[in-house]
Amino acid sequence: MSEIVTAGILVIGDEILSGRTKDKNIGFIAEYLTNIGIDLKEVRVVADDEADIIAALDALRHRYNYVFTTGGIGPTHDDITADSVAKAFGVEIHHHPDVVARFRERWSEQDLNEARLRMARVPDGAELIQSATILAPGFKLGNVIVMAGIPTIMQAMMDIVAPTLKSGQRMLSDSVRADAREGDIGGPLRTIAEAHPDTIIGSYPFQDENQKPNTNLVVRSRDSEKLAAAMAAVKEMLKQVQAAQKKPAG
Amino acid sequence: MSEIVTAGILVIGDEILSGRTKDKNIGFIAEYLTNIGIDLKEVRVVADDEADIIAALDALRHRYNYVFTTGGIGPTHDDITADSVAKAFGVEIHHHPDVVARFRERWSEQDLNEARLRMARVPDGAELIQSATILAPGFKLGNVIVMAGIPTIMQAMMDIVAPTLKSGQRMLSDSVRADAREGDIGGPLRTIAEAHPDTIIGSYPFQDENQKPNTNLVVRSRDSEKLAAAMAAVKEMLKQVQAAQKKPAG
Repeated sequence: MSEIVTAGILVIGDEILSGRTKDKNIGFIAEYLTNIGIDLKEVRVVADDEADIIAALDALRHRYNYVFTTGGIGPTHDDITADSVAKAFGVEIHHHPDVVARFRERWSEQDLNEARLRMARVPDGAELIQSATILAPGFKLGNVIVMAGIPTIMQAMMDIVAPTLKSGQRMLSDSVRADAREGDIGGPLRTIAEAHPDTIIGSYPFQDENQKPNTNLVVRSRDSEKLAAAMAAVKEMLKQVQAAQKKPAG
Repeated sequence: MSEIVTAGILVIGDEILSGRTKDKNIGFIAEYLTNIGIDLKEVRVVADDEADIIAALDALRHRYNYVFTTGGIGPTHDDITADSVAKAFGVEIHHHPDVVARFRERWSEQDLNEARLRMARVPDGAELIQSATILAPGFKLGNVIVMAGIPTIMQAMMDIVAPTLKSGQRMLSDSVRADAREGDIGGPLRTIAEAHPDTIIGSYPFQDENQKPNTNLVVRSRDSEKLAAAMAAVKEMLKQVQAAQKKPAG
C-alpha cells in the first residue's frame, strides 16, 4: 500500500480546443483519482488528429501507471480514438463480437449501419468497459483507459473501471481558511514548508464574503502524522499573524 | 493574413491536478484565441514542479507560435512559474524596478515583505503585462505569455496582451442542429467530409429539450466559400435523412 500510483489524462477533441465545448471531465477525473489514491500528474488536450493523439498517448502511457482518455469514441468520421490507441500499441482493431451482438439486440438491421458499427470497433486485447446503460463501450488496453467524452457516460465508465485499478497510498489533505492575505503569510509559510518536507503546502487566494482578499491553505501528505504536524504549525503561524495584525501600530 | 498562427496553453498548479480547483481558464482562453484568429493546438496541465514546468514549456514554445501559461505567479513558496520560465529561457530573474516602485506606492515598508516582493520578480528581457487594476503583473518573454491563475485577473491580462499578438486568418465556423441521431448521419457525413477537404466537420451529440438524442454539426474553414459549400451539403443531407425517417416503413 505504500506504492505511489500515477496517472495522466488525455482529452481528445477539436471542440475543446476551439472553446466551443467547455471541458467538464478533467476536474471530475482529477477529484475521483485523488479519492481512490491515484496521483494525477499531467493532463493534455489534443485535437482529433491521429498523429497528435498517438504522440500524447505514448508520452503519457510510458510515464504514468495509467492514462485516462476522454472523447472520440462515437460513430462519426471525427471519432478516431480507438484507431489511434490501436496504432499506438501496434495492435489490430476489429468489430468486437460481443458489442456487435449487443448492438443487434438494440437496433434493427437497417439502423445498425456502418457508422453505428464503428462504435463496436475495439483494439485486439482490450477489455470492454460497459454496462446496461452504456451503449457504446469504453475499453482498457494495457494501462490506457478509453472513455466517452460526454460527462455522464464518462462518469459511469469511471465507476466501472475504478475497482479494477491498483491504487496507492492515498494522498491525505487538510485545509484551513487563513483569514489573512497571501502576501502577509508567504514568508512564514515558506519556513513551514521547508521544515515539513514530506508534505505539500499550497496557498490559494480567494475573495471572501466581505469582498476581502483571503487565503485557503491546503496541506497534503501520505503520512497522517506528518500532515497533522504541518497543519498544527500552519495554524500556530496564523494565530501569530492575526495577533500581530490586531496589535495597534506604535 | 493567410498565415496560420498557433498556440498552446500550459496550466500550472497542483490544485487543478488534485481536483480541488476546477479549471476555468482553458475554455476562456480557447474561445478567446479562436475569436482573434489564433489556433489553439494543445493544452497541458502540470504540477507546481520546476522540472515538469520547464519540460512542458520547452515542448510547447518550440512547437507553437505562442504559449499562454496560467497560475503560479503569486507571493508564496509554491509560486514558481516566473523562475521556471527564466530557467527555460536561460535568463536571469530580478526584481523589476518598475514593479517594485508600484508596490512601494501601494504598500507600507512593513507590508512590502519578501513574499510580496516575489511578485515583482520578472525574467530579464520580459515585457510586463499590467494595468491599474492588476496588482502583480504578468509578463511576455519571447513567445511565452505568463498570466495569473485567478480567472478575473487572467482575463484582464488577455485583454492587455491580445492586441500585441500577431493573428492569422481566422477560422470561421457555422453550425446546424441536425434533429437526428449521430449514428443515423455518420455515413453521409463522412462522405461530405471527404468531399470538402479544406473544411473540418465536427459532430457533437447532445440530449435535446425532449430528452431525445440529438446532434450539433459544426463546419469550420478559413475559406468562407468552402465553409458555405460544405454547410449546404450538410443541410441537404439532413433534409434527406429527415425525409427518409418520416417515410412509413414498408
